[in-house]
Amino acid sequence: MYFEDYECARVYTIGPREMDEAEILRFGREFDRQYIHTDSERAEGGPFGSVIASGWHTTAIMMQMLVGTVLQEETAIAGAGVEGIKWTLPVLPGDKLKLIVKPVQVRASRTKPDRGLVRFEMEMVNQNEVVVMTVGLLGYVRRRDEQK
Amino acid sequence: MYFEDYECARVYTIGPREMDEAEILRFGREFDRQYIHTDSERAEGGPFGSVIASGWHTTAIMMQMLVGTVLQEETAIAGAGVEGIKWTLPVLPGDKLKLIVKPVQVRASRTKPDRGLVRFEMEMVNQNEVVVMTVGLLGYVRRRDEQK
Repeated sequence: MYFEDYECARVYTIGPREMDEAEILRFGREFDRQYIHTDSERAEGGPFGSVIASGWHTTAIMMQMLVGTVLQEETAIAGAGVEGIKWTLPVLPGDKLKLIVKPVQVRASRTKPDRGLVRFEMEMVNQNEVVVMTVGLLGYVRRRDEQK
Repeated sequence: MYFEDYECARVYTIGPREMDEAEILRFGREFDRQYIHTDSERAEGGPFGSVIASGWHTTAIMMQMLVGTVLQEETAIAGAGVEGIKWTLPVLPGDKLKLIVKPVQVRASRTKPDRGLVRFEMEMVNQNEVVVMTVGLLGYVRRRDEQK
């Protein structure tokens, strides 16, 4: 997808993608060593009754779902940044996540004629259609016809 | 560290933490399947002359560095959200990253007497003291003395 292909009226839905407990534990043990992410037994008696995915795991899964769908390596130049992330509900083992992506703004670069900036608003929702995370992402995307 | 322990005048520095190529490739292959994160040989001829860490890997490493230092699972209740992330420079294999954490605002919760909100501004810097990523993070932290 080139810069010109992102339509602000469109909604892209990716998934579902099921989260399993083993991967939640693996990510937690490497990057977010808190028992709610690393210890199934102790987490059973904790605030969520189960382990939950690290919020940073959910962002990584978001990227996994974006690459090859809404972002393609031939045209996605770089992530410019993130405007905000909210983790609104825990992600539990067995959750089936869908990523809803809305390009909300496209703007040609003023200084680099080969690219444009796309602002994406994203929602990760679970199998109950409840939002578990929102992310605002800015990305540079290649233009189909480089402007001279 | 309880809510009352975060001092806005203080700067917490964590690391250095060296990034190695194998872990950059492993994260890229799982979560961010673009050749600059997954294929050393092809990335040599790419824009950075080497693989670079996925930006989401750098955020996961940030969390890895925070847990047990500035955030402790006994007192850190939840991440409330992220205000912004900027990836300002590529992270390369062999980079030695340091995380500089500044609590810039502390505010007692109006509705939950057991906690307060801490706003952290963070910079990840490399061995040349150049900023590779900035993150604004909001977290709920337990109060030492619950307010009645």
